[in-house]
Amino acid sequence: MTTHVRIFDTTLRDGEQSPGATMTAAEKLAVARALARLGVDVIEAGFPAASPDDLAAVQAIAAQVGAGGASPIICALARATPRDIAQAWDGVRAAARPRIHTFLATSDLHLEHKLRMSRAEVLARVADMVGYACSLCSDVEFSAEDASRSDPAFLHAVLEVAIRAGATTLNIPDTVGYTTPDELGALIAGIRARVPGADGVVLSVHCHDDLGLATANSLAGLVAGARQVEVAINGIGERAGNTSLEEIVMAIHTRAATLGLATGVDTTQLTAVSRLVSTATGIVVPPNKAIVGATASAHESGIHQDGMLKHQATYEIMRPEVVGAAQSRLVLGKHSGRAALAARLAELGSPVAGDVLDRVFARFKALADRRKQVTDADLEALLGDERPPVADELALEGLQVSCGTMGMPTATVRLRRPDGAVTVQAAIGTGPVDATYKAIDAVAGGGGQLVEYTVHAVTEGIDALGHVTVRVRERAARGVTAQSDAPRPRVFHGAGADTDIIVASAKAYLRAINRLLAAQAHPEPRLAAQAHPEPRLAEAAS
Amino acid sequence: MTTHVRIFDTTLRDGEQSPGATMTAAEKLAVARALARLGVDVIEAGFPAASPDDLAAVQAIAAQVGAGGASPIICALARATPRDIAQAWDGVRAAARPRIHTFLATSDLHLEHKLRMSRAEVLARVADMVGYACSLCSDVEFSAEDASRSDPAFLHAVLEVAIRAGATTLNIPDTVGYTTPDELGALIAGIRARVPGADGVVLSVHCHDDLGLATANSLAGLVAGARQVEVAINGIGERAGNTSLEEIVMAIHTRAATLGLATGVDTTQLTAVSRLVSTATGIVVPPNKAIVGATASAHESGIHQDGMLKHQATYEIMRPEVVGAAQSRLVLGKHSGRAALAARLAELGSPVAGDVLDRVFARFKALADRRKQVTDADLEALLGDERPPVADELALEGLQVSCGTMGMPTATVRLRRPDGAVTVQAAIGTGPVDATYKAIDAVAGGGGQLVEYTVHAVTEGIDALGHVTVRVRERAARGVTAQSDAPRPRVFHGAGADTDIIVASAKAYLRAINRLLAAQAHPEPRLAAQAHPEPRLAEAAS
Repeated sequence: MTTHVRIFDTTLRDGEQSPGATMTAAEKLAVARALARLGVDVIEAGFPAASPDDLAAVQAIAAQVGAGGASPIICALARATPRDIAQAWDGVRAAARPRIHTFLATSDLHLEHKLRMSRAEVLARVADMVGYACSLCSDVEFSAEDASRSDPAFLHAVLEVAIRAGATTLNIPDTVGYTTPDELGALIAGIRARVPGADGVVLSVHCHDDLGLATANSLAGLVAGARQVEVAINGIGERAGNTSLEEIVMAIHTRAATLGLATGVDTTQLTAVSRLVSTATGIVVPPNKAIVGATASAHESGIHQDGMLKHQATYEIMRPEVVGAAQSRLVLGKHSGRAALAARLAELGSPVAGDVLDRVFARFKALADRRKQVTDADLEALLGDERPPVADELALEGLQVSCGTMGMPTATVRLRRPDGAVTVQAAIGTGPVDATYKAIDAVAGGGGQLVEYTVHAVTEGIDALGHVTVRVRERAARGVTAQSDAPRPRVFHGAGADTDIIVASAKAYLRAINRLLAAQAHPEPRLAAQAHPEPRLAEAAS
Repeated sequence: MTTHVRIFDTTLRDGEQSPGATMTAAEKLAVARALARLGVDVIEAGFPAASPDDLAAVQAIAAQVGAGGASPIICALARATPRDIAQAWDGVRAAARPRIHTFLATSDLHLEHKLRMSRAEVLARVADMVGYACSLCSDVEFSAEDASRSDPAFLHAVLEVAIRAGATTLNIPDTVGYTTPDELGALIAGIRARVPGADGVVLSVHCHDDLGLATANSLAGLVAGARQVEVAINGIGERAGNTSLEEIVMAIHTRAATLGLATGVDTTQLTAVSRLVSTATGIVVPPNKAIVGATASAHESGIHQDGMLKHQATYEIMRPEVVGAAQSRLVLGKHSGRAALAARLAELGSPVAGDVLDRVFARFKALADRRKQVTDADLEALLGDERPPVADELALEGLQVSCGTMGMPTATVRLRRPDGAVTVQAAIGTGPVDATYKAIDAVAGGGGQLVEYTVHAVTEGIDALGHVTVRVRERAARGVTAQSDAPRPRVFHGAGADTDIIVASAKAYLRAINRLLAAQAHPEPRLAAQAHPEPRLAEAAS
């Protein structure tokens, strides 16, 4: 007999706060669909108060992924202010099962340095704002930010207030990744023992991996009685990231007999979803990443070694099939048709149709003509190419490059603007990519700084499809996160795939530059500093 | 008052067993030097019985890194056979403080399927082989492989036998990464309570990260009384890898007041050593890797934001300086001299001199002439280029490439053999890298299969130095690991750096192909299967 644990996925909110991991609305929607198919219980779709784009993305997910009765709960984050909560509700209200998630810090460190509020003010704010959220939505989660560094007595008092105000889920974050499993287990047990009404709500844990302990801390919280765990695919998120969804799910799955816990996740989709998120965010998964890394399961040697197969349990505690790793081999060739391609893309968690399918199919045929086999990884790279972030200001019409050990690397680009104007520029650089980017900059007028450049050819064989990811930092600082009103420079990523890595490099850079140009052309309204929002609070409470 | 915990680093043994992470003797020596400077207590330098190359690498480390009285203990792994133990001793005997580490499985699963031995045979073998090792070396470690899945009563009996035979360290591995912190803590506590003589030896834990719990499991073992922890830089190792050195060290450091533990590691060197190992093994470190990932500490926003600096503790539990992350910025420019370069390389953990320094300096000047600033990451990339694995069969004399959206990518290469013979070949490919590799293959005569291709430009600015890593799998299966006599296909990696990524790609591929050609020209003697080594055991015991 096992107890169900709710999987609350925050890939689209905390995960997206990783520097440079910004996703477009279309990418977020694709990830949300994949998460729904994976079987998570709650999708935290974003932080609507951050920008109109964030709000629109949450609304799209609520309407398109959260509409059915069997859909996951769609959740939006809000600071404990009336404006944030109202915007969160605007984001999720179209979902069949909406949730508002509001938070306020409870540690003295945050009270003093960040909020500049007294304990009494925090208690009053929580009562007011949880109450306000409950007046909009029947499912309200409250998080006590920095709970693991808070005075337990004060934390208990805040949680009691939140319960009385109507919160149905209480989340206990280890915001800075500081705690140990024993401590977090004791924290949860203490809350269950001492907070009146705690047995009537769901307790949740949200751990960060700064010391590499996030998965173990989360597990300890669940063993101590928490029934929701907040996680992100590939463990992405602020700093060292959140608890990895795949790790906590497979720990629960593999040790079900001992732990007495279970989740609703279809583990066979884990590898595909991991790849989708890696492609959408540009954050690599190392080969030794638990569960979803390329060498994490010994299936490669397993395939080649008769002996290993007979005694797989000697060195493996989970079969590669269980996490979908064995399905990563070739599937399609040049004779495969549109239906086969569409079916495989759907299996990979990225159903496409109509015009998009036409374009992906055309590129698939072009690739299949040049290669003997097309793998799932190729398809994902092709698809990555089909996620244009914005209407492109600059489109690549032509590129010609010469380089080598003997001369100056030279690139010529031909770019088209939406009005049809075509510009040709040539440039010399330290290498072919540098020359190409200098030529593009000459057309675009500069504006960004390249901070990262990565190529990964994930497929077998020399004729692999190169997948290039770049990050470009804007020169002026903008943007806020849930945890800081301080502006920080935005970073835009771009991805491009081609068998010619210089062409892929040009596509990736253009995509990032187009995102940057679009963001600068339509500046987001900036949030006012929220250090002293009491006046507006008073309005809401009235 | 804190208790000292021994850091046993197995980057060079278990870490090197990661597929494709094979390092040359020179690379192993550089890593061993960096580990000694870092302040680890024990360096597991290799598995001498695997091949003459492994033996030679261990001998070089023992003589050159382990010679002084203040040097770390130099350890070599041996299966529980006379031949392995004798070879391990041959490897480490030149060290001032040598250790032999021998192991035998204690789980019924391994006894039945892998060893095909009875429990009585295991007990007798441990007594014999630990005794034999102790006759050679005063410092002997015994590991009970798959301890976490063993019958505790039998495990206790085996450990008691090992203590009586003279073992001074008893290692308790979670070989398959299956256990939880509570279980491993209880396992260690049980051993301390029930195994006679356990209080006179050092207990050790060795955890794998298959479920993402390695760091927490190791910490639980230490809290329960283990005083040695086996770890690898960047958490590399079989499958999902070993416990990360940097995570366990920083968990102990950050939570010293609670845990009452301390290590001898100089934490400010962690980031540099992490990069060195990533370069030497070709295994990437993702940005969200705890401690050493690029975004793991928020120092980037910290630098740009006055506000954050004032209240750093609100979202950071450790300062970037403490793990050496803040030192990753620019240091050298075109006016820097040889001495400045040599000093900086030494600080980065890679002291070079003589011819090597001359070559690195020449490349440094060439790069500095083209760029405004040269960062530590550039230096590490330049240095990676200066670690030729073997005498090269094929050297790149010239490369000329043209590519783009308009025509067939074409490459021409000119390669020189040791006898001075020069071959020129041109080839057409699906992209410039493919064309280059096809041209090289035409000269080299094929032989390998490209399984991975990665480019990473880690520096700031478009004129970055591109660092290419490739993995090439040989077509015939060879080689053994500590845990399996079954042959598996060897994978060779090659790295190359250049501002022209196509030139860097050519260098990397040639390096891998040269390693493969060298390995095939000098085949290693293969070990005989060790499933039933009793006859030779009897000889040794006599």
